[in-house]
Amino acid sequence: MAIQSFHPPKRVLMGPGPSDVSERVLQALARPTIGHLDPLFVAMMDEVKQLLQYALQTKNPMTLPISAPGSAGMEACFVNLVEPGDKVIVCQNGVFGGRMKENVERAGGIAVMIEDAWGTAVDPNKVAEAFKKNPDAKIFAFVHAETSTGALSDARTLAQIAKQHNALVIMDCVTSVGGTPVLLDEWQIDAAYSGTQKCLSAPPGLSPVSFSQRALDVIKTRKHKVQSWFLDMNLIMGYWGTGKRAYHHTAPINNLYGLHESLVMLQNESLEKAWQRHRDHHLALRAGIEAMGLQFIVKEQDRLPQLNAVTIPDGVDEAAVRTQLLNDHNLEIGAGLGALAGKIWRIGLMGTSSSMWHVEYCLNALDKVLGKAGAKIKTGVAVDSAKAAFGKLAKAS
Amino acid sequence: MAIQSFHPPKRVLMGPGPSDVSERVLQALARPTIGHLDPLFVAMMDEVKQLLQYALQTKNPMTLPISAPGSAGMEACFVNLVEPGDKVIVCQNGVFGGRMKENVERAGGIAVMIEDAWGTAVDPNKVAEAFKKNPDAKIFAFVHAETSTGALSDARTLAQIAKQHNALVIMDCVTSVGGTPVLLDEWQIDAAYSGTQKCLSAPPGLSPVSFSQRALDVIKTRKHKVQSWFLDMNLIMGYWGTGKRAYHHTAPINNLYGLHESLVMLQNESLEKAWQRHRDHHLALRAGIEAMGLQFIVKEQDRLPQLNAVTIPDGVDEAAVRTQLLNDHNLEIGAGLGALAGKIWRIGLMGTSSSMWHVEYCLNALDKVLGKAGAKIKTGVAVDSAKAAFGKLAKAS
Repeated sequence: MAIQSFHPPKRVLMGPGPSDVSERVLQALARPTIGHLDPLFVAMMDEVKQLLQYALQTKNPMTLPISAPGSAGMEACFVNLVEPGDKVIVCQNGVFGGRMKENVERAGGIAVMIEDAWGTAVDPNKVAEAFKKNPDAKIFAFVHAETSTGALSDARTLAQIAKQHNALVIMDCVTSVGGTPVLLDEWQIDAAYSGTQKCLSAPPGLSPVSFSQRALDVIKTRKHKVQSWFLDMNLIMGYWGTGKRAYHHTAPINNLYGLHESLVMLQNESLEKAWQRHRDHHLALRAGIEAMGLQFIVKEQDRLPQLNAVTIPDGVDEAAVRTQLLNDHNLEIGAGLGALAGKIWRIGLMGTSSSMWHVEYCLNALDKVLGKAGAKIKTGVAVDSAKAAFGKLAKAS
Repeated sequence: MAIQSFHPPKRVLMGPGPSDVSERVLQALARPTIGHLDPLFVAMMDEVKQLLQYALQTKNPMTLPISAPGSAGMEACFVNLVEPGDKVIVCQNGVFGGRMKENVERAGGIAVMIEDAWGTAVDPNKVAEAFKKNPDAKIFAFVHAETSTGALSDARTLAQIAKQHNALVIMDCVTSVGGTPVLLDEWQIDAAYSGTQKCLSAPPGLSPVSFSQRALDVIKTRKHKVQSWFLDMNLIMGYWGTGKRAYHHTAPINNLYGLHESLVMLQNESLEKAWQRHRDHHLALRAGIEAMGLQFIVKEQDRLPQLNAVTIPDGVDEAAVRTQLLNDHNLEIGAGLGALAGKIWRIGLMGTSSSMWHVEYCLNALDKVLGKAGAKIKTGVAVDSAKAAFGKLAKAS
């Protein structure tokens, strides 16, 4: 009758996030809870800030995790920078650009949309065009790594165009941080938000954000109060800033232990090696996927290594395949979203889940389940193709 | 040079929250992360909803944890119910009524404030008066258990007055849930928010909320979109509601394991026993505190058992005492906030921290540290007084 303790199975997480959380990070979560104003906790907060500055390649002092998932990080960027009547140029090439539009409009701003096909990168020419038509745009926003399609956009070029028009740049780097280069300072990004459950392989629940000095100046001189009390960076800095910490809200203590540990692991591996690891395992998976006869929907130069959007073989019930992968192999891969629902699978190789063990496990499971379903694929060759591709990479490096 | 893993000490948490998190809940946090759309996770979400309905004594289907700390739960209640121009009667008898005012105004509402002295309960006569002057008030908001002062207000009576004027009732029950009776349906509360790190003794990071059918009807027929995308209950119900779950944001998976476990523990103990336990340990602590010569600032009938606001002996550096309690005894108690900063200590006996072990540990540490500081208190008697008081309670029951 009464509800019992919950004991989740051990899944292999190869969807669009969460990715596999290592035993080391899980154990960090279980360390004793201490107070959110405890001097030892405050010292750890400073380390988290430093580690995030490294992960995001920025010197911005205002670099910290928002106490809620990535969607709240997105909202923090928009509600702090957008004031009623502000014009914001928003690029949409997947689900998350649409969510940006919602955020702009709910903050009283005017969203000027630039549309690109789902599965393609944002087209810089369209951005230049939009600025010509809207020279008064205050903010430019785009998604660096579209989790819904697996496409990577050219952040440096896009930000450059916006800077020529003196606009503030907001970048979604939820899926890119830790998996592909994210260089906030070099690219001159004014506000960025990320997530913990993708290439950082910590559990979901926190959203690293970073604001440039220019963004801070805008936030400090707003005409209207930030519409969210919880996400008002003016207040949050009283708790996360330097000097004496003032209580704003109670931080998610144990979640922060987990993020700290995952960032220490990233620091120890180094960003360069983490990027390389994501690239190599993507190439191995790709060899297997293509040997099987499936295709990538994103063209080669725009492909995210950590999120592989692949076609579904004709006549296959894609949801049934995912259910079988989950039930028979404890393997989670992602469905398509929005315009791509029912048309693709999204295979994540993020953080801890970016390993040859994962590549082989996934290809083997797909091979078996698709084979059983009678799909028109080439069975029995994927794993070997992946191994061969990975061997070549190892030799070359 | 490089940042190392963080190993927090084991503190004894007797401040205003977080309270001590049991080993059982900590171990639940460390269970393997699974997907936020995994059927097994979705089944666990349903159990969390059921367990929260029990904790809040409500049948409201829209009872769920917001994926962020209590401040976000507060904001969720206000941004979903308040539309621009709406009049809201807000009671302030501590810090959190002031935060409610901020929330009303940032949502475009008009806050009509009722002020009561810090450390007293909300005065129902003032509420009746405010409604007479403002018969057009759409919403009435109050804090059930003021964490900043330790005062408990009479929720049933306050809500009744609001209902006579047909207003929606928003209640802050962050510190009351699990420690003192919270009866949402019986009291006719339309929207309530709570926290996990007080009497539920789970780590901070989630905010249980509940909305009545009447509140839902108001939310569904709003003229303006909810200003927060992340906290829009219309969207959140797509993920937490019944039927097929649609992705809205990624839930804080492992945090939810912890909350689930703490709620299972509460269910197994029963609410009645938990309330009794909080009352008994409060009375034991009180006997010790008073034997020592310290006073409570809240009058007896309005005192929260789980949050004891006590005076500081003359001539004592209160911050130095707290530092010494932390450094020499690993004991955290709380400072005063706002109008009570420097004037009181806040001693929490919440959830796992409500035990005779905690009462004795705290009294013993206070006795030693205050004795050393040369405070004018009666030393060496507190623990025995507490034990004697507890012994009497045990005999009486």
